[in-house]
Amino acid sequence: MSLHNILLVDDSSSDVELTKRALSKSQIDTNLDVVEDGSDALDYLFCRGAYSSRNPRSKPDLILLDLNIPKIDGNEVLKRIRQNQNTKHIPVVVMTSSNEERDLLAAYNNGANSYVRKPLEFARFVEVVSLLGHYWLEINELPRD
Amino acid sequence: MSLHNILLVDDSSSDVELTKRALSKSQIDTNLDVVEDGSDALDYLFCRGAYSSRNPRSKPDLILLDLNIPKIDGNEVLKRIRQNQNTKHIPVVVMTSSNEERDLLAAYNNGANSYVRKPLEFARFVEVVSLLGHYWLEINELPRD
Repeated sequence: MSLHNILLVDDSSSDVELTKRALSKSQIDTNLDVVEDGSDALDYLFCRGAYSSRNPRSKPDLILLDLNIPKIDGNEVLKRIRQNQNTKHIPVVVMTSSNEERDLLAAYNNGANSYVRKPLEFARFVEVVSLLGHYWLEINELPRD
Repeated sequence: MSLHNILLVDDSSSDVELTKRALSKSQIDTNLDVVEDGSDALDYLFCRGAYSSRNPRSKPDLILLDLNIPKIDGNEVLKRIRQNQNTKHIPVVVMTSSNEERDLLAAYNNGANSYVRKPLEFARFVEVVSLLGHYWLEINELPRD
């Protein structure tokens, strides 16, 4: 089993903690990097600013993206991921507490692979993150680019 | 639990049979419609030809799309699904035996949500279809459009 890299973009420290615990319980071998706003997300992905020493070939296998994040919102981050040749094929799962129709439509129109509502209850949160992790990291196939 | 509609586009009767058995074992309450070529897939989705009596509001919740299918190939079907307002947000999982890099790239460039290689072994096929079904039908959120 290889180690999978996940980038989590979320400014809620409690949701970050829940995601870490859920991944740990799901027994998927992951390295989770966390950024708390859209500006840091793009710096991380494009290896610039505080992340200029990152190797651009070392891409996350999965991005979990909240929509309501500081500085640059999730939909704008998503657009820029899809516009960049180096990041356009990384699977992006929007993971948010919003169930607004306009957020769903915008996320899919901007190229989200999937949209998942954060469950309120911890046991269900673990189930959802576990299923999501197994699906995107072990079943889904990515180009080698 | 509501009944979920899946459209399976695949010309291999043995793979169709495997998918049916896998869905039945996964205990997801689904109605599976099967078409065997790209032309029938588009007729089904756009409610024309042999499918002109279908209600356009009754859209599949998930499309499982093979790539190497007769008449109109899977990538062309995918493009037309994404170009049509009524079908553009239906999740499409490409499910194929191909592991060619060009097929992966084309599928993602044409708007596939996900790309899954058909497992050769039945037990694994059941696992993959089950995980895939639970993820896309029970976890993923769709616009109500």
